[in-house]
Amino acid sequence: MKNFLKTTVAKEPRVELHDKLNLTGSEISVNRLPAGTNVPFIHSHKENEEVYIILEGKGYFIIDDEKIELSKGDFIKVDPKGERQLFAAKDSGIEYICIQTKTNSLEEYTAKDALIK
Amino acid sequence: MKNFLKTTVAKEPRVELHDKLNLTGSEISVNRLPAGTNVPFIHSHKENEEVYIILEGKGYFIIDDEKIELSKGDFIKVDPKGERQLFAAKDSGIEYICIQTKTNSLEEYTAKDALIK
Repeated sequence: MKNFLKTTVAKEPRVELHDKLNLTGSEISVNRLPAGTNVPFIHSHKENEEVYIILEGKGYFIIDDEKIELSKGDFIKVDPKGERQLFAAKDSGIEYICIQTKTNSLEEYTAKDALIK
Repeated sequence: MKNFLKTTVAKEPRVELHDKLNLTGSEISVNRLPAGTNVPFIHSHKENEEVYIILEGKGYFIIDDEKIELSKGDFIKVDPKGERQLFAAKDSGIEYICIQTKTNSLEEYTAKDALIK
């Protein structure tokens, strides 16, 4: 059995990768919001932290009533209890990746978890 | 205390986000390899799976002696024991994100972990 899985994400509104890639440590979604639109609800999490990666475009977050401007190259970690809602700018769509992991689940990483051949 | 942290990644060779964002469920790195170069070692992992996201450019992976072509929009999950090495193409650099999480650490996710306000 192969030790990898690959998929390619085209320009779709939302793609969830957990099942496509048999992920066991994260859920990863790839998302596109057209200009002037937003995620239609405010949400928080029970156990999971999220990292949002802005790939293209512009927009903003409202997190606990604070406005955070977003553009390409921004990485935002949101703790479980943060009440968040993401908006595209009025004049620009936004493309972003959202990575969901369980808080405090990572133990060793990088050099300490790696085996160099 | 705020429920989020934000950072912006410019065009640096490698940025590791675990400490910058106080991540507790993942390590995320943002990486750039110039054309004709490669990660200088083959590695596998003890406990962690990795997801590679290709942001720009072209290259290829060698995983367990198999060659996998890489370009923008590709997402590749590599299981811990996969022996991997990433190469930029001869005529193109490659930009990619690597997400490291502990295998089998994710429990509920998305709708089941979310609290909608």
